[in-house]
Amino acid sequence: MFKKISAIALTTGLVLSTMSLPVMADKPDNPGKGNENSNGGKKVENIIYMIPDGFSSTYAANYRVYKGENAIWDEHLKGMYTTLSADADITDSAAAGTAMATGVKTNNGVVGLDPEGNELTSILEAAEADGKSSGLVATSRITHATPAAFVANVDSRNNETEIARQFIESEVDVLLGGGQDMFKLEEDNGKQTDRDLIEEADEEGFTYTEDRDELLDLKEEIDVEDDERLIGLFAEAALAPELHRGDTEEPSIAEMTEASIDILEEDKDGFFLMVEGSQIDWAGHANDAAWAMSDVEAFEKAVEVAMEFAEKDGNTLVVVGGDHDTGGMTTGSGASDGLNADLLKEVTATGEGIAAQLNEDRSNTKEVVEENTKFTLTEEEVTAIQEAEDAASAINKLISDRAGIGWTSTNHTGADIPLYVYGPQSDKFIGFHDNTDLPKLLAEVIKVELDNTVEESDESDETEEE
Amino acid sequence: MFKKISAIALTTGLVLSTMSLPVMADKPDNPGKGNENSNGGKKVENIIYMIPDGFSSTYAANYRVYKGENAIWDEHLKGMYTTLSADADITDSAAAGTAMATGVKTNNGVVGLDPEGNELTSILEAAEADGKSSGLVATSRITHATPAAFVANVDSRNNETEIARQFIESEVDVLLGGGQDMFKLEEDNGKQTDRDLIEEADEEGFTYTEDRDELLDLKEEIDVEDDERLIGLFAEAALAPELHRGDTEEPSIAEMTEASIDILEEDKDGFFLMVEGSQIDWAGHANDAAWAMSDVEAFEKAVEVAMEFAEKDGNTLVVVGGDHDTGGMTTGSGASDGLNADLLKEVTATGEGIAAQLNEDRSNTKEVVEENTKFTLTEEEVTAIQEAEDAASAINKLISDRAGIGWTSTNHTGADIPLYVYGPQSDKFIGFHDNTDLPKLLAEVIKVELDNTVEESDESDETEEE
Repeated sequence: MFKKISAIALTTGLVLSTMSLPVMADKPDNPGKGNENSNGGKKVENIIYMIPDGFSSTYAANYRVYKGENAIWDEHLKGMYTTLSADADITDSAAAGTAMATGVKTNNGVVGLDPEGNELTSILEAAEADGKSSGLVATSRITHATPAAFVANVDSRNNETEIARQFIESEVDVLLGGGQDMFKLEEDNGKQTDRDLIEEADEEGFTYTEDRDELLDLKEEIDVEDDERLIGLFAEAALAPELHRGDTEEPSIAEMTEASIDILEEDKDGFFLMVEGSQIDWAGHANDAAWAMSDVEAFEKAVEVAMEFAEKDGNTLVVVGGDHDTGGMTTGSGASDGLNADLLKEVTATGEGIAAQLNEDRSNTKEVVEENTKFTLTEEEVTAIQEAEDAASAINKLISDRAGIGWTSTNHTGADIPLYVYGPQSDKFIGFHDNTDLPKLLAEVIKVELDNTVEESDESDETEEE
Repeated sequence: MFKKISAIALTTGLVLSTMSLPVMADKPDNPGKGNENSNGGKKVENIIYMIPDGFSSTYAANYRVYKGENAIWDEHLKGMYTTLSADADITDSAAAGTAMATGVKTNNGVVGLDPEGNELTSILEAAEADGKSSGLVATSRITHATPAAFVANVDSRNNETEIARQFIESEVDVLLGGGQDMFKLEEDNGKQTDRDLIEEADEEGFTYTEDRDELLDLKEEIDVEDDERLIGLFAEAALAPELHRGDTEEPSIAEMTEASIDILEEDKDGFFLMVEGSQIDWAGHANDAAWAMSDVEAFEKAVEVAMEFAEKDGNTLVVVGGDHDTGGMTTGSGASDGLNADLLKEVTATGEGIAAQLNEDRSNTKEVVEENTKFTLTEEEVTAIQEAEDAASAINKLISDRAGIGWTSTNHTGADIPLYVYGPQSDKFIGFHDNTDLPKLLAEVIKVELDNTVEESDESDETEEE
């Protein structure tokens, strides 16, 4: 099917390494002068690039109902962008991450390489080359596809121990998330690496922590100007979903964001920080509306930290945009007359977490589900869960039906993604884009070269159009 | 449920008659100077307000695949807006039309009245009061909720003969669409009016036609400057879906748009034209992807007519925005690996149209469906249609599954809606809005009073923020 829509790919700005920056339409005159969008035309010092994995405009609309008011990003809406990858109408997170990090489309599954296997430079690396410090934050393993795309170059996103190795050998200064297993020497566990990357990291100037309290102390101590660096890995694999984080000692995504900013802002040349709300996507795959909304809420607190810093700093741009939609979430469904996403605030566990509390014959379904949702279940609803092949899915379906949230897939979809930008020169992001436009615009505002595009002459054409 | 989200209503700009224009965030500096967004700060002369009923960003993304390239509106994306009505999280077309016409939220089902029953002034009426001529185009009965909201004031959208009467008694100059039954004297048909509104229209200066060829002649003859007016009603009820229009003598929505512009542009004070792609919504209710995409295509041709006029004219603003999403359409579904919306181009009838060709025992299902879709059906697919309670729904499900399009509802949803604006001062529309903001912004650009808001002082606050 992909071949048939190559025309779209072109018109929405699909760029391979020989193509150049597509022109944005309808640019306003004189963007970035005289208000919060302005810093007097100076280059932006710091970028905080926040990626809610799987988040689309329907998540945004449902989250507004869940929260009871606008999200912090709503008023900063600047446009939307397309997401298709080089080999598929519907992207995965590796190709989407690569597009959002490097400005080049690649095949699904590929990290930091173009479809021909050439290594790409990311906006993080371009910022590093310009003297800035950099960091990655995720609630998945830090070696997952989205953060990986900003630093690593591997032909398969599954090669996470190689991604970990490349992280250690890179210039990145702060790595916070899950994924201890991808860094630790294999003991009796096939998941772990065959080299002690924690030790190697130590040799590369990294301080290592697995402890939230230590993180909160270390953020005052690490001196990036003195080449000190930090890896914080707070779980063997992914961090807990926000719904379950209270049962752990893990830091929140907001705390990891704040720690990263505290460390990176000491760099007098500025910084680049990528923060991924990784598990919104996983909630979408599971069609788990309560997990999705609670992880969006945790992500919003991280965005709040970033925007507060940006407001105070004055030279920091905060960009918020998902990599794709997951699950085909809708804002209303045939199962409910209205939107009741606010009911999800009462849900205390993921569908899987609730299912794990069922006994073997599921005879305690009514008590367990009611305890975890505050719903009163009908007999039919109880039976549906008891007889379901997968109890967790049935529980998620019940919860979504009550909330008025529909789903059409357990995979990604090709929905356009809303783009929110706050800070100086944010007007540059107004309009309709492709995901590959984002790092190019970021390169423009921090005035660095992102040398994955060959025909520089077209870029000056683009500047003239402004 | 609605009470619980009143905070959203406020923050997204729900306005009752005593409330004022919400502030748009992140406005660019100096909008409307020096490019197509500009007319040197002069007031805009003409507005063409184009409403694809039921169209959301997922329709936009699927349509791009269907078309094989960007739609004409994509590059003019300016922002998104919320749609909830005064009494429901999910709006109907009457409340949405009223919001988009008057800037005031009302209850579902209500046309041109606020929730207390007070009559509201529409942007069309405000333009008329300023000396402009005006017109309404729709592919439904012209008395349907969306066009009605621009002229009529009735407590129930179902009172269409009253809406027809108010149309005739209004200042509107051009009415083109379906709905003869709502204007003609009742004969032996309960659907018709008890007054001969066609005769009354004649007394009010209207020329009446039911003929496409006559319309194409009349557009050269009607002189609005000489108070000549036109009603063209080309079907007893709705016009045909675009898929079936070839079997009729009806004009296309593009032809009706062009005829309206040709007539209205003669007014030296300018004009206001509303054009509704009415049946995109009906396709959504039926979960009929081929009907949806083909009616979007017909609507796009009308937008092209409008934009071409606007480009030539230089003082015309074209606004394109749906009133709500219908069906919870998604861009991808569990039934398909990718997006194959281009397959829909081969479909030659609506699901209902295909089902009507089945014989009584549906033994000809395979031939009929294959003939109308160009698919090769599996035995399972044939059986699913033969055994379905509703053959049309089963056919639509088959077609959507093949196309990779999901649906979660046969009703409207609460998705945010993308806003496209082309022409002078289009930058005023950048950002995140509520549907009630649209007519207020239109009033601003054509410099007329839209006097449904009482506290004028807040409007000047808003101006200062720009």
